[in-house]
Amino acid sequence: MSDKALNVVTICGSLRKGSYNRIVMNLLPSFAPDGMTITEAPPFAEFPLYDADVQNASGFPAPVQNLADAIRAADGVIFVSPEYNFSIPGGLKNAIDWVSRTPNQPFAGKPVAIQSATGGNLGGGRMQYDLRRCMIFLDALTLNKPEIFIGMASQRIDDKTGQIKDEQTIGFIKQQLAAFAKSIEQHGLKR
Amino acid sequence: MSDKALNVVTICGSLRKGSYNRIVMNLLPSFAPDGMTITEAPPFAEFPLYDADVQNASGFPAPVQNLADAIRAADGVIFVSPEYNFSIPGGLKNAIDWVSRTPNQPFAGKPVAIQSATGGNLGGGRMQYDLRRCMIFLDALTLNKPEIFIGMASQRIDDKTGQIKDEQTIGFIKQQLAAFAKSIEQHGLKR
Amino acid sequence: MSDKALNVVTICGSLRKGSYNRIVMNLLPSFAPDGMTITEAPPFAEFPLYDADVQNASGFPAPVQNLADAIRAADGVIFVSPEYNFSIPGGLKNAIDWVSRTPNQPFAGKPVAIQSATGGNLGGGRMQYDLRRCMIFLDALTLNKPEIFIGMASQRIDDKTGQIKDEQTIGFIKQQLAAFAKSIEQHGLKR
Amino acid sequence: MSDKALNVVTICGSLRKGSYNRIVMNLLPSFAPDGMTITEAPPFAEFPLYDADVQNASGFPAPVQNLADAIRAADGVIFVSPEYNFSIPGGLKNAIDWVSRTPNQPFAGKPVAIQSATGGNLGGGRMQYDLRRCMIFLDALTLNKPEIFIGMASQRIDDKTGQIKDEQTIGFIKQQLAAFAKSIEQHGLKR
Repeated sequence: MSDKALNVVTICGSLRKGSYNRIVMNLLPSFAPDGMTITEAPPFAEFPLYDADVQNASGFPAPVQNLADAIRAADGVIFVSPEYNFSIPGGLKNAIDWVSRTPNQPFAGKPVAIQSATGGNLGGGRMQYDLRRCMIFLDALTLNKPEIFIGMASQRIDDKTGQIKDEQTIGFIKQQLAAFAKSIEQHGLKR
Repeated sequence: MSDKALNVVTICGSLRKGSYNRIVMNLLPSFAPDGMTITEAPPFAEFPLYDADVQNASGFPAPVQNLADAIRAADGVIFVSPEYNFSIPGGLKNAIDWVSRTPNQPFAGKPVAIQSATGGNLGGGRMQYDLRRCMIFLDALTLNKPEIFIGMASQRIDDKTGQIKDEQTIGFIKQQLAAFAKSIEQHGLKR
Repeated sequence: MSDKALNVVTICGSLRKGSYNRIVMNLLPSFAPDGMTITEAPPFAEFPLYDADVQNASGFPAPVQNLADAIRAADGVIFVSPEYNFSIPGGLKNAIDWVSRTPNQPFAGKPVAIQSATGGNLGGGRMQYDLRRCMIFLDALTLNKPEIFIGMASQRIDDKTGQIKDEQTIGFIKQQLAAFAKSIEQHGLKR
Repeated sequence: MSDKALNVVTICGSLRKGSYNRIVMNLLPSFAPDGMTITEAPPFAEFPLYDADVQNASGFPAPVQNLADAIRAADGVIFVSPEYNFSIPGGLKNAIDWVSRTPNQPFAGKPVAIQSATGGNLGGGRMQYDLRRCMIFLDALTLNKPEIFIGMASQRIDDKTGQIKDEQTIGFIKQQLAAFAKSIEQHGLKR
């Protein structure tokens, strides 16, 4: 184990303030294993839609650079995202599309973990495999297991109090964070 | 065959002016079979990133309504899109995410066809199956075959003249448009 | 509505006698809407592993021809299958691989519906989208909705009595069968 | 670099003797980087179709145990497989389904690489992502890049001489093998 804490950043796929996924993301620091700090990466809410003509004319917008820098500086990235129309939310995908084009591509060799919460039973399964495929292209080190699919989110997450009501879900998340810490130590750390 | 022309609208997944996919889209009217008119749907370039809070506060932005209306009025929709990071471009996905939430969901029962051009060999294959999955959720009638994957686009498309140089590619596109017309007549037409 | 009953055949993805998916398949006739008869297609248990050399030397084994004939004669096909290793069971895929090569490819234009039951929460979601992609290649008319994912199968299906204990699951299945009947009448029937 | 050679085994997804994928597999030892030995794993041609009742009654057939043992003993596994009906060949998937159930699951933590050759342009792209998803479940360490899709196989592979005619393809394969060796040294080796 390194004597420096692992620095993990989170990216929420939903822009909605009361999003179940945002609630989960906000709780992650409290579930982190010893030696891991978890903070939210700079938001993508102000990203324009990706347009190569804009990039060529004006370069990368400041919010894009901020997010890319944060990913580059992190020891790992956790996506916490809903599923829209059976795939990745367009806004999150747009963020990836911008960031992926910045120099020194930030996801290359970067440990990545994925969590999702949805109202339905599948809990974001379709989204996660599309996101994993993006990460293949970007050469990230995506954690295999455990997968976190929080289905029936309204029964498991209290959006009044911002807490997860379901101890089993909390347990799964803690297991993933512990597995992620171990995987970063084993495969991802460059220092 | 109906005595009214089939009214098909196109949506380009790239915002870049010189995009190979835009070139292909712009040429589709010249490849259309008798009895099919093809026009570009209103653009999604001005869509904000989807945010349910924005939708709840302000409703659907005018450009979203324009695109949704055009899809609703059409007999069919053709997506012509690149692949970004092994999946659907974020901007196009964001457009689908907005439009899918408008009342009288526009893709329900709508005939859809997909084309893609990319610089690499696969020609957008990964993108197309993700887009097809979105269309399952939206209950569209997505054409099975022929699939149009224009790989090695720079060898097949002349972005100076805006023409397709490769007769085989033109032939495949014409075959798809003819199959799409037949499929709309058989499965999709409501009038 | 045709005055002849719709003739639908079922294919179970599991060879295990006590399989949850087999239980569901066996119950489908009792859930069928008026005007639809549901029978099990000839089994694939005796298919050899697909080998083009075998096909070239000996042609199609009798069990392959029997299954292909049954599919050809049917107005629709329902797959009821578990998920193995996050995709289609090898045995079922092998059956499709054989049948797909018989003359007058049996799935072409054939209405298809999919159901799956699994022990986990996702209920076979990963398997279903792979199977749907196979059906694109084979030009089947795969029903979009409703999707049937029976997660936590041991809580919903009684393998002692061979009954489904969960009324909601029964309701979903009946809805799918009704939607399938409607879809066959609209898109699939050739007579 | 370890002073012991890396021991990599290959698994061909096709049973056909003259298979393009078999030709590629047979050539891999000649493309291997220094310090990597590549040998074919025991075949799956004699595997029965997976049936849990058979497993429960008779245990694992000897050919299943042989393949599982070879995977367990290897430092890495390379799949070389065609695409059947837009997904994994049923025979190969059946082999994975059997092997995955053996004690001390052989793919856990195992470095895996994938190659595919097909007659069409996509070169097996659809198959590879399904196989990658299987490997997520089995917790393998699947190499991200470079991906090897050998499209238009009849133009690139000479099935009379058993050679690859296309130097670029040979170059890509050598790059993948080198990247795989590096990845095994970095992530996979347990000794």
